[in-house]
Amino acid sequence: MEDKAQIQEAIKTQGEVVRKLKSEKASKEQIDEEVAKLLQLKARLGGDDGKHQFVLKTAKGTRDYNPKQMAIREKVFKTIVSCFKRHGAETIDTPVFELKETLTGKYGEDSKLIYDLKDQGGELLSLRYDLTVPFARYLAMNKITNIKRYHIAKVYRRDNPAMTRGRYREFYQCDFDIAGQYDGMIPDAECLKIVYEILSELNLGDFRIKVNDRRILDGMFAVCGVPDDKFRTICSTVDKLDKMSWEDVKKEMVNEKGLSEEAADQIGEYVSMQGGMDLAERLLQDQKMSQSKQACAGLSDIKLLFSYLQLFQVTDKVVFDLSLARGLDYYTGIIYEAVLTQAGVAPVPAEVQNGAPAEESVSVGSVAGGGRYDGLVGMFDPKGRKVPCVGVSIGIERIFSIMEQKAEASAEKVRTTEVQIMVASAQKNLLEERLKLVTELWNAGIKAEVMYKKNPKLLSQLQHCEESGIPLVAILGEQELKDGVVKLRVVATREEVDISRADLIGEIRRRTSEA
Amino acid sequence: MEDKAQIQEAIKTQGEVVRKLKSEKASKEQIDEEVAKLLQLKARLGGDDGKHQFVLKTAKGTRDYNPKQMAIREKVFKTIVSCFKRHGAETIDTPVFELKETLTGKYGEDSKLIYDLKDQGGELLSLRYDLTVPFARYLAMNKITNIKRYHIAKVYRRDNPAMTRGRYREFYQCDFDIAGQYDGMIPDAECLKIVYEILSELNLGDFRIKVNDRRILDGMFAVCGVPDDKFRTICSTVDKLDKMSWEDVKKEMVNEKGLSEEAADQIGEYVSMQGGMDLAERLLQDQKMSQSKQACAGLSDIKLLFSYLQLFQVTDKVVFDLSLARGLDYYTGIIYEAVLTQAGVAPVPAEVQNGAPAEESVSVGSVAGGGRYDGLVGMFDPKGRKVPCVGVSIGIERIFSIMEQKAEASAEKVRTTEVQIMVASAQKNLLEERLKLVTELWNAGIKAEVMYKKNPKLLSQLQHCEESGIPLVAILGEQELKDGVVKLRVVATREEVDISRADLIGEIRRRTSEA
Repeated sequence: MEDKAQIQEAIKTQGEVVRKLKSEKASKEQIDEEVAKLLQLKARLGGDDGKHQFVLKTAKGTRDYNPKQMAIREKVFKTIVSCFKRHGAETIDTPVFELKETLTGKYGEDSKLIYDLKDQGGELLSLRYDLTVPFARYLAMNKITNIKRYHIAKVYRRDNPAMTRGRYREFYQCDFDIAGQYDGMIPDAECLKIVYEILSELNLGDFRIKVNDRRILDGMFAVCGVPDDKFRTICSTVDKLDKMSWEDVKKEMVNEKGLSEEAADQIGEYVSMQGGMDLAERLLQDQKMSQSKQACAGLSDIKLLFSYLQLFQVTDKVVFDLSLARGLDYYTGIIYEAVLTQAGVAPVPAEVQNGAPAEESVSVGSVAGGGRYDGLVGMFDPKGRKVPCVGVSIGIERIFSIMEQKAEASAEKVRTTEVQIMVASAQKNLLEERLKLVTELWNAGIKAEVMYKKNPKLLSQLQHCEESGIPLVAILGEQELKDGVVKLRVVATREEVDISRADLIGEIRRRTSEA
Repeated sequence: MEDKAQIQEAIKTQGEVVRKLKSEKASKEQIDEEVAKLLQLKARLGGDDGKHQFVLKTAKGTRDYNPKQMAIREKVFKTIVSCFKRHGAETIDTPVFELKETLTGKYGEDSKLIYDLKDQGGELLSLRYDLTVPFARYLAMNKITNIKRYHIAKVYRRDNPAMTRGRYREFYQCDFDIAGQYDGMIPDAECLKIVYEILSELNLGDFRIKVNDRRILDGMFAVCGVPDDKFRTICSTVDKLDKMSWEDVKKEMVNEKGLSEEAADQIGEYVSMQGGMDLAERLLQDQKMSQSKQACAGLSDIKLLFSYLQLFQVTDKVVFDLSLARGLDYYTGIIYEAVLTQAGVAPVPAEVQNGAPAEESVSVGSVAGGGRYDGLVGMFDPKGRKVPCVGVSIGIERIFSIMEQKAEASAEKVRTTEVQIMVASAQKNLLEERLKLVTELWNAGIKAEVMYKKNPKLLSQLQHCEESGIPLVAILGEQELKDGVVKLRVVATREEVDISRADLIGEIRRRTSEA
């Protein structure tokens, strides 16, 4: 089509532009731009002249979703969203980036993982790190004092990716939060009910929801003799108990964080405790723990929480676990985390397991987590007015990983389209007739496809249906056109019947209504 | 709750940390981080001590979506997605950022509008500018040679925002593309059919779809005496004809781009032409135009396109318009753009119109656009192998603006939740009973709410239903509990009936099934 000589001339000219810029030591950006134009020209020539140095990949820690993965993703989202809606939530959306200062000082040690945008003039921006801080900013900015909302969106962390285990630098969070001044523990209990419902409905195997309270942790640290200024850093170390043994955690406390051996041992005793309402009652009587007002407030709330959880019928999966700490700075009360406990669905693919057998015993990790953060909105309000909040975030990427493996392991084919019927022809020169019929079907709201060829072979039309799971084919031929009918073929059974054109749409609807 | 003296002590200590860093001329980042911690501490005190210097806003050119806007957005997406699915499309997703080099050299003069991420070590990244280039990268990377896919996601442009007119720096694109080697103009015609269906279904008023072809433009430039190296830049100027008068466009061509007055006048004659298949036929006979092989190829394809558009029953809105140019570099064949023509739905709010009456006559601008780009995938393929593509992008933000204004103007209230029933109590001390009942309803899949108060007033429970459009209330009282019934109240009519607990779920489903 294009005039080769003309393009070759343009390539020569553009090559000179690039050489000139390089000799003038122009900026890398400018040179890159012109080199790209050159490559573009070369690409228009096609063939070997068009060879590129492009690195064909997505950014580190990120991935594309192909149609099969999208089909699974949509199924998971549907389950989650319908649960959020069942509990009466509205939804909001916020921009993918925030003013940098909005995120500053909210994430403690994790702040270094925030992606910043380049300063191209104007405001300094960062990609959102979670959906909680933007939510708090939204509430303060719009002076909203109560709302129940969900937000499903991608967040960004410059973490070390472990993609086979579902840890990415770009990943979805599905957050549900309740903001407002309410009577204690009722919204908190509903958040746990929601986690319970979602994990049950997704059918991921058995799970546990661990519950603790920041005030219990702080009280525990106080009565164990941790200096005030070390609460947060010791808390970070306790948070590692799901990945490290107590011995290693203790070592970090004593050797790195300078805690006394005695204090560490006392903490060690508490963090090994797990139970239910009974444990909260026992600790309220505990000689040491009961000395802390904070701890007692937390323990009473745990008791109240469990009484609501009983009414919500979810206590069989919830456990009060004093080792649960959670890393983020902004939590002020109850905290929780859900983990899958069934070994059968570990999201570590076989190859990785073989390469590193130690991985096999590693827990799947948290698939949901959250807690109460009563101070965060106040950090954004010009007058420091607080809006109490509690929420939960579903860690969807790990769930995707598990669902994808399940889908791969199962024999059932995942359909990536919803096409009900293919409009095909048995003879040549029927393109016009096919386009007319498919127009009729589209206009009636039927999901239909037609091959973009003038004279496709019947076999290749049928093959396309088999491959993409299209259940019906409407076959047109000279005879059918004469008779005013369409040959309707059921792909699965190969059964064929003539249907009059007038009845076709009704017949398609009838045959695909349960699909 | 918190110990004020303790916090004040911490504020003092943190203040010293900040002063020390400042005196040491530490990095701005480090200081900001510590200042934020200080503000955080102050916020915990509440009251006036917690005053912040935070700028409470979203980044320039971006906005939050509140629940009402989200409800509208979801309705629009539903219409669009169901059209894409009706035409048999799969969906994919790609990361929000790409390697910078992936975007380099694809957007011509618009490249300066790309957002770059800060170099924090590792790869150089940029936010995606559209969904077409990531799609082409995806095809090349996965060696896909045919696919019909849609992709709905946000893209980013550092443009001058005009938010009242629906122009943002972060905005959604809804793309549908067909990749593959097919017979001419069939997929191209389907893209136009899709635009037609979506704009009709969204009920935005009358519209036109302008069609042209890059080869016709290039051929026209050639026969009008535009030098080869000025094709692209003259094309950019022609693209401004929807915003500028011909006189101004001509001035730019002659004075800024150095085109001869004669050539400009010849272009002026062509770009005033509009028509249908007849115009394509006429131009094929045009003495000058017919000298260009390229133009003839484009004109023949326009003819073929219109023949398919007739079969698709959409020619009433499609017009062949030689002034349509489109800015992006990557188009190689047919191009199109849809504009709303009904003055009644101009997305310029009244305030703005009054302030700037000239705006009133400005066209709403394009709400969809696209074209054929046969060279783009080849730019990513190591061997330059081409995958012909044609696609369309729905400019959803302008559509949102119009729908939002319509919703505001209409009396109908937009519901932001789908709650079917509120579980309420008429007397005190019934929290446990309310939680038990709402659990029953949730477990049965009913969308239900309960107030998070121990003893809410009946009136405030009913008010909440009125405000958020909840149609039913299940009222519990001592008597109802004794009788094993629930008082079911219809919010709209205030009608109340006793329903036995066993029948309640069925009754709710029956009464809300058409909602």
